[in-house]
Amino acid sequence: MSYVSEKSGKDGKPSYSKGLEGVIIGESKKCFIDGERGYLAYVGIPIEQLAENSTYEEVCFLLLHDRLPTERELRDFKKLLYSYREVPSEVYSIIRSSARYGVHPMAILRLAVDYLSIFDEEAEINTDNLNYIKALRLISKLHTITASIGRVIKGLEPVHPLEDVSMSANWLWMYKGQKPSEEEERIFDIILILHAEHEINASTFSARVVVSSFTDIYSAVVAAIGSLKGPLHGGANEDVMNMLSEIKDPSNVEQYVRSKLSRKEKIPGFGHRVYKNYDPRAAILKSIAEKLAEKNSRVKHWLEIGKRIEKFMIENMGQKGIYPNVDFFSGIVMSYLGIEPRMFTPIFATGRIVGWLAHILEQLKDNRIFRPRIIYTGPEEINYVPIDQRS
Amino acid sequence: MSYVSEKSGKDGKPSYSKGLEGVIIGESKKCFIDGERGYLAYVGIPIEQLAENSTYEEVCFLLLHDRLPTERELRDFKKLLYSYREVPSEVYSIIRSSARYGVHPMAILRLAVDYLSIFDEEAEINTDNLNYIKALRLISKLHTITASIGRVIKGLEPVHPLEDVSMSANWLWMYKGQKPSEEEERIFDIILILHAEHEINASTFSARVVVSSFTDIYSAVVAAIGSLKGPLHGGANEDVMNMLSEIKDPSNVEQYVRSKLSRKEKIPGFGHRVYKNYDPRAAILKSIAEKLAEKNSRVKHWLEIGKRIEKFMIENMGQKGIYPNVDFFSGIVMSYLGIEPRMFTPIFATGRIVGWLAHILEQLKDNRIFRPRIIYTGPEEINYVPIDQRS
Repeated sequence: MSYVSEKSGKDGKPSYSKGLEGVIIGESKKCFIDGERGYLAYVGIPIEQLAENSTYEEVCFLLLHDRLPTERELRDFKKLLYSYREVPSEVYSIIRSSARYGVHPMAILRLAVDYLSIFDEEAEINTDNLNYIKALRLISKLHTITASIGRVIKGLEPVHPLEDVSMSANWLWMYKGQKPSEEEERIFDIILILHAEHEINASTFSARVVVSSFTDIYSAVVAAIGSLKGPLHGGANEDVMNMLSEIKDPSNVEQYVRSKLSRKEKIPGFGHRVYKNYDPRAAILKSIAEKLAEKNSRVKHWLEIGKRIEKFMIENMGQKGIYPNVDFFSGIVMSYLGIEPRMFTPIFATGRIVGWLAHILEQLKDNRIFRPRIIYTGPEEINYVPIDQRS
Repeated sequence: MSYVSEKSGKDGKPSYSKGLEGVIIGESKKCFIDGERGYLAYVGIPIEQLAENSTYEEVCFLLLHDRLPTERELRDFKKLLYSYREVPSEVYSIIRSSARYGVHPMAILRLAVDYLSIFDEEAEINTDNLNYIKALRLISKLHTITASIGRVIKGLEPVHPLEDVSMSANWLWMYKGQKPSEEEERIFDIILILHAEHEINASTFSARVVVSSFTDIYSAVVAAIGSLKGPLHGGANEDVMNMLSEIKDPSNVEQYVRSKLSRKEKIPGFGHRVYKNYDPRAAILKSIAEKLAEKNSRVKHWLEIGKRIEKFMIENMGQKGIYPNVDFFSGIVMSYLGIEPRMFTPIFATGRIVGWLAHILEQLKDNRIFRPRIIYTGPEEINYVPIDQRS
């Protein structure tokens, strides 16, 4: 065998890291996570500062350009971004026709973005400049697609985008059919910022692997959506909210969690491959939920259950490095905005689209096709046996 | 930083293998490649023996079950497989409507398979038994989809599948609208066998990474198609045929290749990440082409050009481990069957669908989500600067 390997495992096979845990796949300027101290920064700027001071548009610029924009750059960037919001009528049609089959909104999203590529005459032209423009188009249009899916699965007609409001105000407008309050716009903006980027998670890795054959960027985003859809990735935020509903009352928490743990089931919204400490995004979402709880009794109720789960989990699992992750409090905050749980993962995608594209463009600029190896554990060299001689 | 790394690179950064070359991502019973001696076996059986004695159906069984079938098993397997060939009328419609935009057949294929998932009520149910049945359905239906794309892009109507002929005979029937000769059926079968599986190439790796979030198997296949579409992966076979057409006459070979190499351009169909010797699949295809050249003047012409390129390349690049790969002679053989170059990559997918699915099912049976790391090379920790204070 000719595998490159540092050391051999116990049975003489080369050793490897399952799920590529801890394995480095390249270099990136986008994101730094220190899992031990629960630290996250986009292009050097701590997530807390971005959530406090920035906007989703500015974070998009930051992730695509590896620096913050000047006033003029931000103005031009927004203008371009906002101008790309509308999608072909065929895309609305396929959302409607696939929603009829009752499939998950993430499957509709994957399909709608896949279809969108057909209408981009430049889809297959992989130059840096064009891909940058295609990325802006895709960010804007994906927002329109997720909001439209949110309406269509409720039996409503899509609401077309506005051209002169922020990404967040526009999304809430398209989803709800009415302009959001300033508070709602700001909360949604923070949700998008917190979900915008997270290094080489499974969906971003999927996007990088796919695009490394120098295929088009739509193929890579479609793969990322398909990956995020999985319950081990983006699906967890929906599961958290379902768990809170199931628990119903704070007094049921300990029994519920204990019995789930005794069945070796995972508690959704807890634990992370990289964070072995409190996920800083969870801390930000928790503090937003706490403020909202002061004036909203439903948020107060969900948060009481949530915090009791959190306390129990940290007391019992904290020493194993299991803490709340971004999915744990995000559902409570999104519910406050009137968003239903099956839309939580599409909203994750609505924020993350820029992170995927930032990594895709970075990959293409210094590309090598991903082509690893796998240890063969099947039968040794054998001969083909004619079918009438097989036992 | 908390990366796991065996050694540090020269600038103190942890070292890594670009494109994950030589990095092991897990274990598999499907395929063994020894790149040094140019050896390939599916589940222990050398590719030469399979090409000589087996059928595509049997190879599908072999890859899905890790052993050859008995007569009875093969009969039942074929019956099931053949019964799944038809696709919903909506899938034909989306092929027609997207072909109108003149996009690449691989983009249509990605979209059509994406759409197909909407009609599978069990798409999201990830049990071993159901996924096996979904895999059989997907193999059969992908054949129907690629053949239909082949017709629709020529302005013809799709021809519906037959239920009582082999996978190869059925594909040629659907593509050409007439039943193939025994020779044509056998040649096409060998093409499918040779493309059925090839360890952790970029598209199979894409499929494994995507499905590792425990998403549905369609999402993983859609990602694989998107990856195969890229010119660094499946697109090469089409490029070879275009190169042969461009060269026109065997006497132009040396000048053409020399000038391409002097511009540091790659010669399509040569070189492989794993093979540093003759790709055994290329050897099989070459011998088929040689037999066909005896009776067919067009094949003779292409082969003369091809063999002259091969001679020049091995003499000049062989010491660097650059030899013909599977893409080099496959186009000549497919052209003999009346298949046009833009269909070569979809035919690659038509064979490979079983390899993708075999790996997807294997991944799901012993899954861990792929979540590697990347070295952060952006700015150190910095503070957010208000926009009016930026320079």
